Amino acid sequence: MLRSCASRLRTPGALRGRLGGAPPPARDSRPPPRSFSSEVIYVDHSLPNPSWSKDMRLLFDQFMKKTEDGSWKRLPSHKSVSPQRTEEVKTFFPDAKPIKEHMSQAQLFPRSLEEGLGFEYAMFHNHVENRTVCIFQGGPYLQGVPGFLHGGAIATMIDSTVGMCAVLAEGVVMTANLNINFRRFICKTRS
Amino acid sequence: MLRSCASRLRTPGALRGRLGGAPPPARDSRPPPRSFSSEVIYVDHSLPNPSWSKDMRLLFDQFMKKTEDGSWKRLPSHKSVSPQRTEEVKTFFPDAKPIKEHMSQAQLFPRSLEEGLGFEYAMFHNHVENRTVCIFQGGPYLQGVPGFLHGGAIATMIDSTVGMCAVLAEGVVMTANLNINFRRFICKTRS
Repeated sequence: MLRSCASRLRTPGALRGRLGGAPPPARDSRPPPRSFSSEVIYVDHSLPNPSWSKDMRLLFDQFMKKTEDGSWKRLPSHKSVSPQRTEEVKTFFPDAKPIKEHMSQAQLFPRSLEEGLGFEYAMFHNHVENRTVCIFQGGPYLQGVPGFLHGGAIATMIDSTVGMCAVLAEGVVMTANLNINFRRFICKTRS
Repeated sequence: MLRSCASRLRTPGALRGRLGGAPPPARDSRPPPRSFSSEVIYVDHSLPNPSWSKDMRLLFDQFMKKTEDGSWKRLPSHKSVSPQRTEEVKTFFPDAKPIKEHMSQAQLFPRSLEEGLGFEYAMFHNHVENRTVCIFQGGPYLQGVPGFLHGGAIATMIDSTVGMCAVLAEGVVMTANLNINFRRFICKTRS
């Protein structure tokens, strides 16, 4: 069961996940691109792009500074997942029956909107502390109540961050419970 | 505080929201389209399209049948919201400061992905019972764990459904708490 906490939410902001237990092994390997199409799929979207605001860039630079001594690592992020990950899922959830027809089209939900329009984020992980931080900027396609981020968009970022922390500790996980107290409004991105 | 219940989730499936209190007045008015661009914005996306599966279409037809005696109404759904709604929000949340620069680009989050790739859904509301039902089919861009819907995508649909039920009862609302127990995996759409 994963519990999410929105107490430090802001836009751009940092979401934090932390789990107990021993530090997990490093998991920064991805299959190298083999062709033009796989290069597109494996573009790392956790790097700054022109849509990022000054504040978002500042937060990113602060965490990049923390990676210099090796205590923190930036986690690459792709639209698709490696075939190896899909096999892991089959092992961990043998009773589940994912549908194959659409697997080739599949994209990771938080990366499925175009640059600057949806979720702009980068995650950093501290293996010693078992802690994951996500810096996040919401775009204009994440609207709920006019002018504000949709609660589901915020929930998506929290679920992704806490889920990533759990994946790095446990391998393959699925969310069993998501309990969020929204503390304040979150406006859409400011440039 | 809104609480969400995922006990009846399936794909395609029906999500239900219900609130106590007196039945609200009907709210099915939208400003009529004035130009080509506003026509695009006010296209009703809650109607069947070719990406809908047989099961999704069947559920839709079942609920359309229930609208014939007037007890249920299909709720239209648009990518954007009317200027009137924006003004209502300012009245209800005077302390909030939405950012104006991106309002023209803004799209409702669950409608921001192209047809068949993200959220395909339609909502129906029973004013007498104060009950909202959402039928939902998830597309390939909503992936979390490979082959399955992202927890944030499911949370988005639940938040939207319960939120809509509250909006119809209260006018303008924002989610204060979202507490979801996920009962089973949800696979991506089957055609």
